[in-house]
Amino acid sequence: MTKFARNHWYAALWARELGDAPIGRRLLDEPLVLFRKKDGGIAALTDRCPHRLVPLSMGVLVDRGIRCGYHGLEFDASGRCVHAPSQDSIPPAAQVRSFPVAQRYGLVWVWMGNAALADPALLPVIEHYDSPGWERIDGGYQHHPSNYLNIVENLMDPAHTTFVHRLTIGNPQASNEPVKTERTDGHIVAYKWLLNSQPSPMDKQIMDFQGGSVDRGQFFYYHVPSMSRVDIVTMPAGLEHTEENMNRGLRNNSYKFVVPETGSSTHFFWLHLRNYKVGDQEWSDKMRNNLEKTFLEDREIEMAMQRSQQELGVRQLAGLQIDRAPGMALRMIDKLIQAES
Amino acid sequence: MTKFARNHWYAALWARELGDAPIGRRLLDEPLVLFRKKDGGIAALTDRCPHRLVPLSMGVLVDRGIRCGYHGLEFDASGRCVHAPSQDSIPPAAQVRSFPVAQRYGLVWVWMGNAALADPALLPVIEHYDSPGWERIDGGYQHHPSNYLNIVENLMDPAHTTFVHRLTIGNPQASNEPVKTERTDGHIVAYKWLLNSQPSPMDKQIMDFQGGSVDRGQFFYYHVPSMSRVDIVTMPAGLEHTEENMNRGLRNNSYKFVVPETGSSTHFFWLHLRNYKVGDQEWSDKMRNNLEKTFLEDREIEMAMQRSQQELGVRQLAGLQIDRAPGMALRMIDKLIQAES
Amino acid sequence: MTKFARNHWYAALWARELGDAPIGRRLLDEPLVLFRKKDGGIAALTDRCPHRLVPLSMGVLVDRGIRCGYHGLEFDASGRCVHAPSQDSIPPAAQVRSFPVAQRYGLVWVWMGNAALADPALLPVIEHYDSPGWERIDGGYQHHPSNYLNIVENLMDPAHTTFVHRLTIGNPQASNEPVKTERTDGHIVAYKWLLNSQPSPMDKQIMDFQGGSVDRGQFFYYHVPSMSRVDIVTMPAGLEHTEENMNRGLRNNSYKFVVPETGSSTHFFWLHLRNYKVGDQEWSDKMRNNLEKTFLEDREIEMAMQRSQQELGVRQLAGLQIDRAPGMALRMIDKLIQAES
Repeated sequence: MTKFARNHWYAALWARELGDAPIGRRLLDEPLVLFRKKDGGIAALTDRCPHRLVPLSMGVLVDRGIRCGYHGLEFDASGRCVHAPSQDSIPPAAQVRSFPVAQRYGLVWVWMGNAALADPALLPVIEHYDSPGWERIDGGYQHHPSNYLNIVENLMDPAHTTFVHRLTIGNPQASNEPVKTERTDGHIVAYKWLLNSQPSPMDKQIMDFQGGSVDRGQFFYYHVPSMSRVDIVTMPAGLEHTEENMNRGLRNNSYKFVVPETGSSTHFFWLHLRNYKVGDQEWSDKMRNNLEKTFLEDREIEMAMQRSQQELGVRQLAGLQIDRAPGMALRMIDKLIQAES
Repeated sequence: MTKFARNHWYAALWARELGDAPIGRRLLDEPLVLFRKKDGGIAALTDRCPHRLVPLSMGVLVDRGIRCGYHGLEFDASGRCVHAPSQDSIPPAAQVRSFPVAQRYGLVWVWMGNAALADPALLPVIEHYDSPGWERIDGGYQHHPSNYLNIVENLMDPAHTTFVHRLTIGNPQASNEPVKTERTDGHIVAYKWLLNSQPSPMDKQIMDFQGGSVDRGQFFYYHVPSMSRVDIVTMPAGLEHTEENMNRGLRNNSYKFVVPETGSSTHFFWLHLRNYKVGDQEWSDKMRNNLEKTFLEDREIEMAMQRSQQELGVRQLAGLQIDRAPGMALRMIDKLIQAES
Repeated sequence: MTKFARNHWYAALWARELGDAPIGRRLLDEPLVLFRKKDGGIAALTDRCPHRLVPLSMGVLVDRGIRCGYHGLEFDASGRCVHAPSQDSIPPAAQVRSFPVAQRYGLVWVWMGNAALADPALLPVIEHYDSPGWERIDGGYQHHPSNYLNIVENLMDPAHTTFVHRLTIGNPQASNEPVKTERTDGHIVAYKWLLNSQPSPMDKQIMDFQGGSVDRGQFFYYHVPSMSRVDIVTMPAGLEHTEENMNRGLRNNSYKFVVPETGSSTHFFWLHLRNYKVGDQEWSDKMRNNLEKTFLEDREIEMAMQRSQQELGVRQLAGLQIDRAPGMALRMIDKLIQAES
């Protein structure tokens, strides 16, 4: 049985997915049903009627909440049974667990641990989410039939890009750049700068670097327990690498939320922010398509890894220097899990 | 390993299914091969040649019985090997279990327990099966990938109709009627009467109630271990509720035979009898179609329940008053199993 | 966990399958990657990068060997890592097992045991493989989802032909002929002669037996651990049964290599040699088609047997005299496995 860090907000679905029907989704191996309340808010309950264990997501919405599709038991957003068929009193066992819910960034977030600790201030922060001068591609979702640790490692690992993505975003020159690593309690960043190089033809087409050379930065952030941000900067060389100066260059921010479904499968939500080609829908469509394809390349690797891991009962047989940042991320997750148990 | 009540007749297939080829079917987790004998009778053997364990149902029929498709061992209807290739004597271990078989109501019945106890008098009884003035729809079969207990509970449970079958036979008004329950050693009936109500437009179309009101009765019978009968009556109000008077009204009798295939899957045979629209094939076709659809609605619920049950390792977390009749049925089954072990 | 006799050459693939891309194939439950070296030779390594366990067969060929598709680690044909990304020294654990490889008869053979014992002199011998006057059909492959023991037994068992192959090659008259058996340390042969019978119309069409009768010989060879040869001879009656005289008749030699993939699935390579209709491609095509069909008939039986075996936990419940040769073959395999452990 895989353990998870539970006292966190986890993305469960895109808010736009939720219409008039409840949606069942498994998170951290818990079956959840999510549905819209009459007041517009969203509720998350254990997706299992306590009577005969039928998923509540097979039921329908009613005024007071959700009604089981088998015998019509009704539950409100707190998980309390408010109607049982053919009887006046509600049996005490007829209730389901309710989970704190938040909405932000178009996503529905569920607090999977101790409800008393749920605090919207702990929701992840997406930089430039609504900033003017930035364009957003969002609503991305893939189901990855791999454990989430493989995906977190992958996202903290610049070294694989050349090989896994050689047909899409890979760049043969970049493969041997060493990365630096920094960390706090809640996040890690692995990054590298390539100084004084020539802008690519594509970069020059987007921005006039006035014939000068550029500095390229790559930042791979991991925020516990589920957020990855890859920040790619191409800026005129010679400027100090401040946040403000970086925004003068071209910047791509790729966010992923890696949410365990079970111990061996993962919800993969993504969105992308850029500070150029704002309003260019055609560019966005092409980019969305490329990103999806890239993530599927990773998925194929993850699935093959998982088969080997399950066969051998280990995750790895030999360590490399490039494992530093991914290893830090996994140790952070492990520490969170230990602290909760 | 699921336990079953074995000393009973179980429906194995519709007799019309059996042609010139043997048929393999699993009952109570035992592989059976059924085939027609030269004398027109039907035999049921363990579906496994004792030599190399190949299912005999992969073989062919021969004069003396059935011939294994691998090496040609022949077995007669008693399960005795009567021919072994390339040798004169038959090894004593070359025999398979034979099961008592009966034919009734177009079904082939197999006695799955101690053959010495097999008695045709113990076959289920179907009322009005051949009565004049009654029309029959039969030959119904569905495979339900759920344990049979979920199905027995469902069939003893009027309360789910409003919710599971809201798109087909469900009736919102009926949901809160309490049921009465009676039982003997061999069967239970849960029933309710709705007195002095108006006949439905459909009912009036079929029978002239002369503007008067009607009494509606619903009877849910369970006969151990596998027969369900749902008897729906609509009769002129004011008459005594005798069997004879009930037959003056409209009557639908829906029979199901719920036969465990394994611990987690079930053969679901059904037939239907009505005392109106006799000879109306179009009506029968429509009804068959509706019944099939209704049973598939139940099947979806059963499958979802089974997934939850397997995950949690329990069947139920909270009890309701409507569980009374289903609970009695399950206790009866349990008692039969206990008595046999 | 199934045990296998490892100190042997096993067919892994047809050499013509190997182009510019590596091929992953599991043998004796070991994942192998096979690929062509720059020098034209073929290498076989464990198909699992020691870093993150991704199959090397998902990678690409490079000058020095094979490159992992995840992070670009490169391995030479000896399994030594010769390049690791972003670092100068190679971690000692970064190596994979390499297996001795041989090419013969168009097949790639892998020595699955102790490499020090690998000796090309131990490769199987195929009679008349390149002999003038013989025609070859080769390249045959089927995947059989059954354990290899069922297949070895089947191939040493003339008695099943009449029944399993009654629609293809079966011959009702032949079923009760007893077989003789001979064995050495490395092989068994079960055989029978049918003397002074009439040539079939088909045989007469191929060869002029001058109106005389024929002797028919059937030889079922099993060479440990994986080669089966079925040698069918139809020769003029009255001649001594010497190898030379047998070659004067019609002769069909059907070779199979039965290579465990896992404990419950098998690679089935086959080729066929005949000493008539040399150069007749149409005949060969028809024959290939018939052989494939025949092997699929066996496969169906094997799969059904395996399901029964897995359910019961035994291979057989009753023994017959026809089990003699198959039983000897299984005991030989068992002895090899015992000797290695």
